[in-house]
Amino acid sequence: MPNALLVVMDGLGDRGKETPLSKAQTPNLDKIIPSSSVGLLYTLGPGQLPGSDTAHLALFGYDPHEYYRGRGPFEALGAGVDLRSGDVSFRANLCTIDDKMIILDRRAGRADYGMNKIYATLDGIKIEDVSIRAIHTVEHRGAVVFCGPGLSAAVTNTDPHETNQPVAQAKAADKSGEKIARIMNGFTQKVHELLKDHPANKERIAKGLKPANMAVLRGAGLFEKVPSLQDRFGLKAICIAGGALYKGVAKFVGMDVIEVPGATGTAATDLAQKANAAIDAAGKYDLIFTHIKGTDSSGHDGNFDGKCKMIEKIDADFFSRVIGKFDTIIITGDHSTPVSAKRHTADPAPILFWNAACRPDGRNKFTEVNCAGGSLGQLTGTQLLHFILDHLEKEHMFGE
Amino acid sequence: MPNALLVVMDGLGDRGKETPLSKAQTPNLDKIIPSSSVGLLYTLGPGQLPGSDTAHLALFGYDPHEYYRGRGPFEALGAGVDLRSGDVSFRANLCTIDDKMIILDRRAGRADYGMNKIYATLDGIKIEDVSIRAIHTVEHRGAVVFCGPGLSAAVTNTDPHETNQPVAQAKAADKSGEKIARIMNGFTQKVHELLKDHPANKERIAKGLKPANMAVLRGAGLFEKVPSLQDRFGLKAICIAGGALYKGVAKFVGMDVIEVPGATGTAATDLAQKANAAIDAAGKYDLIFTHIKGTDSSGHDGNFDGKCKMIEKIDADFFSRVIGKFDTIIITGDHSTPVSAKRHTADPAPILFWNAACRPDGRNKFTEVNCAGGSLGQLTGTQLLHFILDHLEKEHMFGE
Repeated sequence: MPNALLVVMDGLGDRGKETPLSKAQTPNLDKIIPSSSVGLLYTLGPGQLPGSDTAHLALFGYDPHEYYRGRGPFEALGAGVDLRSGDVSFRANLCTIDDKMIILDRRAGRADYGMNKIYATLDGIKIEDVSIRAIHTVEHRGAVVFCGPGLSAAVTNTDPHETNQPVAQAKAADKSGEKIARIMNGFTQKVHELLKDHPANKERIAKGLKPANMAVLRGAGLFEKVPSLQDRFGLKAICIAGGALYKGVAKFVGMDVIEVPGATGTAATDLAQKANAAIDAAGKYDLIFTHIKGTDSSGHDGNFDGKCKMIEKIDADFFSRVIGKFDTIIITGDHSTPVSAKRHTADPAPILFWNAACRPDGRNKFTEVNCAGGSLGQLTGTQLLHFILDHLEKEHMFGE
Repeated sequence: MPNALLVVMDGLGDRGKETPLSKAQTPNLDKIIPSSSVGLLYTLGPGQLPGSDTAHLALFGYDPHEYYRGRGPFEALGAGVDLRSGDVSFRANLCTIDDKMIILDRRAGRADYGMNKIYATLDGIKIEDVSIRAIHTVEHRGAVVFCGPGLSAAVTNTDPHETNQPVAQAKAADKSGEKIARIMNGFTQKVHELLKDHPANKERIAKGLKPANMAVLRGAGLFEKVPSLQDRFGLKAICIAGGALYKGVAKFVGMDVIEVPGATGTAATDLAQKANAAIDAAGKYDLIFTHIKGTDSSGHDGNFDGKCKMIEKIDADFFSRVIGKFDTIIITGDHSTPVSAKRHTADPAPILFWNAACRPDGRNKFTEVNCAGGSLGQLTGTQLLHFILDHLEKEHMFGE
């Protein structure tokens, strides 16, 4: 069966006359670009500024205006929680508070010593008829899920997003949020009792680390199961990613998610392992989605050379291995994270679309400006997915 | 704070191998075009034919399918009337009728001698519980506003749009329009009584001018206050324009509107004054909108040389002054008014988008054809506004 490899270099697009992509030495991309179709990807739509979660929903063919319910569920799914409809999920930070519940460090110094034990202590708390799951991911981060009847995500965060502020009271945004707000505030009290003298915190203090004595919550999202890629398009898809968020969005749409040793979601990620995992999946899946985070992180840091080197590393360690091993290869970004802006922007991402039968635009280098005016024109994320489906012979004809 | 200058050269786009824009000598535009991003603007959407009012609503980020309620309110706002929700506004012409209410000249010969006094006589008429405002703008034109309870814009015009026709009876388009239709027909009678022997008309006749002895109405629109650019986007914006319509749309969306001496909305407008006003506003506003009408008027007249000369005048008197004075400069049209068509057409307008961090498309001249295939792709008016908001760091991320 025909297959397609979709590679998302997170935050790939940039601005300016010379960009990390235009400067990077990419001998492997250079081989396929002349015989590729090119275009511009406005993931959500022209002029819209995508988050990482909404951008990936769109790339997977799920219009975020219809399907997005907040980030929490993706974090929880990515952390391995098996969500059920009605569960309300949050991103959690373990943080350091003083006796008066004032936040001294929103990340408890980031050091994750003992944090898995602390999350394990919080996992299984029950308040009224609501069971609470708490799962550690990386450093201070985790996912917290409230499971019970009558919950909604119409509630404010307990994370005040600033230090020297008290842990925030959760407040209902409307009547439907009253129960979850009450449970969240009960959770804050319970966490305070459980963590203030927790053995892991005694050990942290003995080691000179800040105690991780509170968990604050943000990004509420109500989970509702949606039809999978298989249900909607007959598409068998797999996700190869380091970051929990991307795995979470992939699970949400029904992709298989594999853990690849050395796929860390950082610049140090082992791209040869990811390439090998993608190649292994080639005979078993229609769509092989690979996410590479390092380009975005360098963009956020304003690090031109770092972004450029990350692109060169991807070319050397990943594209060198995968080119020639798939029927179709699509290379793009989920959005732009220009080093001059240090944030996501509404600039489109470049797209390279290669297969033996595509319309070759004859560009000599894969750059933002060279992708303008190409055979793909400009596409949204969901449009690109349907274009890929068509090449996989899975797009339904409208009419006859 | 970063700022953006949005210059609309009305009806800029044209058709054919050589266009006024491709022929015009524009040394100032030529300096910035190579380092600009380019694209095509379909103000309302591809294939849609924009009016001046709907095009500007879209450019300001207000989808006209949602916000447009007829032209009248924009004319009234532009004429300086302070509208309240529920007011019904019209564009008005003073015209010449005979004893049998047959229209002999829809513009009373255009000569505006005494017309301000005539509008002043009509201003303040009261019929039933409805107060009527009548404001002179230019030549025979003005705005007439009906203020009172239970009015709607579901009514036909009293302007028959032809000579040798009687002043039309206003007719309700549905039940909601019955009251306004009755008031409008009462207004026609009242105007007839007040103007047939009006001193200004006696003077006009003595001077050999046609009497301006009737006011006919068109373009009914019900005013409803909408959230401002500040409310919706935190955007502080100012409008520099000669024409009442453009000022009216700007007021509708909450822009500040300044009067610039010599800004006439005609080919004779003083563009140096407009440039200076724009530069003065640069430190005080996020978005400085400047409207220049002359290009459209030449298009309607089928005057290739006039349109070409107007573009050259804008380059020499306006762009020479503003280039280098703003962080971002966007130059476009609200639609195309090709000289061969002498009307608005659905052809897209070219866009030039310059700032220090944009993706330079390296074009050597700002023309319709050179803007195709550029880094901006094709945008609608509202999409362009969001793209500008992103550069002003005011676009909200959807997702996280």
